[in-house]
Formats: sequence, C-alpha cells, structure tokens
Amino acid sequence: MAVGLTFQPEILQAVPGVRLGVTEAGIRKANRRDLTVIALDPGSIAAGVFTQNRFCAAPVRVCREHLAATGGKVRALVINTGVANAGTGAQGLADARTTCAAVAEALGVTATEVLPFSTGVILEPLPIAKVLAGIPDAVATLSPTGWAHAAEAIMTTDTVPKAASRTVTLSDGSTVTLTGISKGAGMIRPNMATMLGFIATDARVDPHWLEALVREVADESFNAITVDGDTSTNDSFVVIATQRTGPLLRGNATCTDSRRFREALLALAQWLAQAIVRDGEGATKFVAVSVTGGKDRGECRQVGYAVAQSPLVKTALFASDPNLGRILAAIGYAGIADLDVTGVRVWLANAEEETLVAEQGGRAASYQEADGVRIMKADALTIRIDLGRGDAAATVWTCDFSYDYVKINAEYRS
Amino acid sequence: MAVGLTFQPEILQAVPGVRLGVTEAGIRKANRRDLTVIALDPGSIAAGVFTQNRFCAAPVRVCREHLAATGGKVRALVINTGVANAGTGAQGLADARTTCAAVAEALGVTATEVLPFSTGVILEPLPIAKVLAGIPDAVATLSPTGWAHAAEAIMTTDTVPKAASRTVTLSDGSTVTLTGISKGAGMIRPNMATMLGFIATDARVDPHWLEALVREVADESFNAITVDGDTSTNDSFVVIATQRTGPLLRGNATCTDSRRFREALLALAQWLAQAIVRDGEGATKFVAVSVTGGKDRGECRQVGYAVAQSPLVKTALFASDPNLGRILAAIGYAGIADLDVTGVRVWLANAEEETLVAEQGGRAASYQEADGVRIMKADALTIRIDLGRGDAAATVWTCDFSYDYVKINAEYRS
Repeated sequence: MAVGLTFQPEILQAVPGVRLGVTEAGIRKANRRDLTVIALDPGSIAAGVFTQNRFCAAPVRVCREHLAATGGKVRALVINTGVANAGTGAQGLADARTTCAAVAEALGVTATEVLPFSTGVILEPLPIAKVLAGIPDAVATLSPTGWAHAAEAIMTTDTVPKAASRTVTLSDGSTVTLTGISKGAGMIRPNMATMLGFIATDARVDPHWLEALVREVADESFNAITVDGDTSTNDSFVVIATQRTGPLLRGNATCTDSRRFREALLALAQWLAQAIVRDGEGATKFVAVSVTGGKDRGECRQVGYAVAQSPLVKTALFASDPNLGRILAAIGYAGIADLDVTGVRVWLANAEEETLVAEQGGRAASYQEADGVRIMKADALTIRIDLGRGDAAATVWTCDFSYDYVKINAEYRS
Repeated sequence: MAVGLTFQPEILQAVPGVRLGVTEAGIRKANRRDLTVIALDPGSIAAGVFTQNRFCAAPVRVCREHLAATGGKVRALVINTGVANAGTGAQGLADARTTCAAVAEALGVTATEVLPFSTGVILEPLPIAKVLAGIPDAVATLSPTGWAHAAEAIMTTDTVPKAASRTVTLSDGSTVTLTGISKGAGMIRPNMATMLGFIATDARVDPHWLEALVREVADESFNAITVDGDTSTNDSFVVIATQRTGPLLRGNATCTDSRRFREALLALAQWLAQAIVRDGEGATKFVAVSVTGGKDRGECRQVGYAVAQSPLVKTALFASDPNLGRILAAIGYAGIADLDVTGVRVWLANAEEETLVAEQGGRAASYQEADGVRIMKADALTIRIDLGRGDAAATVWTCDFSYDYVKINAEYRS
C-alpha cells in the first residue's frame, strides 16, 4: 500500500543516447524480471554517490573503481535484484567484475566502462551463472522505451515501480529530457545515496559540474529520507548525461540554463526519493519533518532524523494518535546539547490546515486535542519544528511504522 | 509477555531505614495504585543520574536542584505514574515543587529533602489536585515491607513488576541489604539512566563514593539497554544509602568490602535493567549484543547500539529468521569510519551452542543455515561481534521488534 504513489509508464520519456533491456534471469525468484542492462551511446558521462556503509557491497566497490578509471566515461550499467552481493567477500568482488566483463563483451565495450549494481538479500552469494546466462537476453531487448520495464525489474519489496520524467527548454530553444527510476522500501536511511536511483539526461553537462551536482542533489533528495533508519550496504545514486542536446552546462552561478537544469534534476531526484518513502514497507502515511531556526543545516537534519526515526513517533502516526509529547522527546534527545527548549515551537499540518502544538517548553495554550486528531487523519502530514536559534533549515521525509512493516520484515526471506 | 521474567514479591527484603507507601490517586486510570511515597530515616543519603534529554521532565529538574541543595541528604521520594509531567513548561515545574512541599508537610521534613519522579504520557498537565489528595493516603500506608506494592505502583506499560534484593556480608560480620525496583518497557534508550530505577541499602557509604558509584553502575546497567532507541524525558536512577549497618565504605581500591558492595550493587542494577528489556513492549526475545576487539569502549557501544536498535535486525529476531546480513549492515553503518570489515567476526549463540556466522567480509565457510535457524529458536540469544582492532569491549541488551510493539504504541493512550 503506497501513499499517494501510482505508476504511470505512459509519461516516461526516452532519453536520446540511452537504451534499456531487461530479462528474467531467475536470480532469486522465478517469473519475474530481475536483470537490467542500460546501454549508453559513446560520449556519455556518469557521476555517482554511494553508500558510506563500511560493509559496502562488492558492486559498490567496483562502481567506484570503474568511475575513477574512466573519469566517468561509462557505456553501460547492469543491475540485478534478488541478491545484494554484499557480505560476500572476495568471491563477491570477482562475481561483480565477471558480470561487467560479460556485459562489456555483449556490447563491444571494455569492462571498466560498465557499472554494476545489485540489490536484495545480504550475505548470500550472487548466482553468477544465472546472471551470465541472462545478460545476452537483456541486451537483446535494449530499447529507448525500456524505462518502465527497468523500473519494474529493479524492485525488491517495492510495491510500485518508481519512475518519472522532466523536460527543460534551454535558452537556445533546445529541450533536454531527464528520466529517472529508483527502488527501495526497507533498509532506507541513505548515507550519501539511496538504495538505487538512476537519472539520465541528454543534456550536455560539464563532467566536473556533474560530479558536484550529483552530491548536491543527493543531499537534498535521497540523503533526506528514512524508512527504518537502516543504512543499506548497496545505496547508489547515479546521474548520466549523454551529452546530445543543447548548450554545454557548466553550473556557473550566472547561467540561467544551468540553474534551470539543476532545478529540474533536483525536482526529479526529490520525486524519486519521496516515492521510496511513499512506498516504504508497510507505510500508510507520508510525513515531512521540516526543521527551521537551526544554527546550521547539520543540526536541523539531526533533529529531523531523530523525529523521523523515532519508533514511538512513527507508531503514533500509524495510529493517527496525536501523542505529540513523543515528538518533543525526540527533539530533546537529538543531540543538541545546548538546546533551549523554551525557544522550540512545533506545528502539525496537513494539506488543509496547521496547528501550533508546543511552545515555551510545553503544550501551546491554543492547542486543542480535537485539532490534532482531525489533522492527523490525513495520509500526508508535515511536522514543522522551529528551533528558534538560527536561520538554517532542513527537511527529512519519512513514513509511519505499521504492523505491516514488522510483517514484511519478519517474512522477507520466506 | 515478558521473556524469562517473573515477579517474586516473597524474595524482597526490607532495608532498615526505608519505608514505602502507595495509594490509588486516580491520576490517569481508576482502580490502580499510581502514587508512591518512599520515606527515609534521618542520616540517609542519595545520589542519582538523570536523563540527558533536553526536554527533560519537570521532576527531573527539581531532583537535580534538591540533590544539589541538600548534598544528597534526602528524606523522601514521591513517584507518580500516568502522567510524565514533561513538556509541561512553567506549570509543570510549579506542580513538581507543590508535590514535594505536600510530602514534606506530611512527613515533617523540608521540601528540598523530597525528590519527585513522574512517568507516563508527555505533554499533558499533572492533575495536581489528585496528587495532593493522594499523598496523605500513601503516607498512611508507609511500611518497611512496601517494596512489592511500590514496584507495581510505578508501572506504565510494564506487564511485570520489577524488583529484586541482594545481601552482602561484610568483614565485620554485618550483613547489608540492597533492594531495588525499576519500571519501563517503551521509550527505552537511557542516556545516563533508565526510565525509573531505585535501589536502597542500609550500608554506610561515603557520599562522594556514592556519587561516583551511581554513575559507574548506571553505565554498565541502565545505560546499556535499549528497547526502541527513544531516550525518555524522565529517565532517573537513584541509589539510597540509609547508613545504618556495617563499616563505612569509601570505595578504596584495596577495600574488599567496598568491592563486594559494588559487585552486589552492579549485579542488582543489571538485573533491574535487564528486566526492563525482558519486559520490553511486545518483546518475545531477550538479546545480548556483546562487542569485543574495539579500540575503545565507546566504539564497542556504538556498534552494539547500531545492531540492537536496527529495526531490520529486531524484526528478523522476532521471526527467528537468521537473516544475518542485516547484522553486518548495522555494523557497517555504526559510524566507525576506518573499520576494516575483513577483520570483523560475528557469532550467534544461545545458552546451548554458538556458531561463527561471518568473517573475512563475508559468510563463514563453516556456517550452515540450519545451525542459525536452530540457535535462533531460543528466547535468549547472544550476538557476539569481534571488531578485531583492539582490546575494549561492551555489551548492550535489547529485545526483538514484534507486531505487539506496534500495537502497544499505536494504542498506548486509548
């Protein structure tokens, strides 16, 4: 049950220079697409951010190596679901390299020009024979219109494929397209990037700016979500530019085209990141925790994550019970040692209305329990927190914690 | 459903100099004991540690003030359940002081000699009239044998009262008694102390040593447990010494009596802290996460808490599913930036057997899924982690994450 999220394959736009193919390789389950190849035309570049988990997956290590070796000039991505190829030691690394070599051979490129990605169960070996057998089938289906199939083929416990497109018309009259897909529903507390997120554009983007841009955008999208606070071993977010269309975008502060491209990329990344939360395991509510008035962005994020990850806040959200003292408790333990709680104000809002819940270290005099009850019935909520000590702000997106979260995660492997 | 925890009121021993009384004050629910007064004979001293939550409750602030004002020479404790008196601003502080004054008047002591404690719902005003009306009734029932009633009267979502006694025979032939009670089942991730824990002894303990001792003992007991990772606004752990019996204990390194007293106090505090985890909301398993081989105790605790608080690890424990990659993921994101994962080893154990699960960055060659399945069926488990980089160690105790945790916390106020 995803919150306000539907799959609209008909809106997805092809990106010149990008073709996608999928197949059923039988990696973990029969009769489901689980292997994706994305082929990029010559001249394309890519930049990525990856998990900071020390037990990072073998494909994450190989991605970092290959991006460094090629300076981002990659020609293909290969993605399997079912098995994460994490906690797999030396054999896992060898399997990731073998996968890249097989894709390279099928496409007539070199192995370092291929980036590998895996998602699924940790600590189990990648069934490499099945992956290798599937690669020619996936390559045989390569098509510019393969985005919808790819969005489906990278899912694990996701209930809805996540994909969207944006277009930007630039000053020279050209129109560039951005299309992206993402996956993830559990083990979601990205640290540098999400479970898996891919965005491609035909824009001409300076490679140095793309490197910086992918980090900036991740920080305000995939790095601002949480489902359960568990940082995955496989988080990867990659932006591809096939360099086909429009003026070269260098990211200069005065360049309107760069600004507009950045805005479209950020909007698309935020949509894809929020889609992961909307489809969070067992989610029945989509919640923004918006923190203002901090001394710096870091402490705003700290408070946002403390509230967004509190099991007590999340179960109260599930129950639509305005047990809002739990929010104060989470703000209080977020780690700001010199926080003056008398300066903190907390509001609860939905799309229609907002109410001040707490101020002066206690319940706001104007707060009525009936208002809290009514507002919390909505399936999209904002918890707004003003720390009252500065000008910085940050938002974290999350979902509630339901019976189904426990059910899904108690049964995941069976 | 508490894991391996029963209430044995018959084993509780009176502590000379300590009397306890309880009553039904109707603070939140009818027909339940919810107000406790503990009266201490002249000459008693107390030391406490309290929550680090910035939204700390009004009674916690008053406790700190009164302990400072009296140098620990306190004469009474007053504890209400039902309402936490946290997030209650200036009125909450006034209510806590009024409560102390009323207890002081009833006992013929001064208000600063009274320590107040509250537990229950945050952000709701303390019904001060009901508290004041109840105090004479509680005082009227004061008795040295009131420990069992007090253990019941401080419960909130606890399903089992938590109380135990220890005795130590000292070198002069005297025997000192230690009896303690605790409460807590949710919002448990104490930071300096637990929800509520009280231990009293008739031993003669030097006040300076008692101050140090309460911190040391809290660090290895109440500060080493987690149910849901939420640090409460009301955490308080207090040790009382009525100074009646035996030689003066100063805590000198060479003093056998001090060492034996410390061991008994630590054992009792650990029992009371572990009882909170065994009665953790919805708990079906009691789990020790034992981390060795760290560079310092801090990083061992960091890893222990990352594993113990991971919702994915906790739901796998609930399901008795050895989805052990989730443990590796939690170790990997625990925040040790230079952790070499090839040096990490992980074992799974119950009372009967232990199996090596992971080493060299991946699954141990000897590990058999059937072993993991069999071991995980026990209701008491140890996850043993060797970081392979030093000599420090720490243990964190936790429970699993079940449907009932969500149910209890979605329904708590109703």
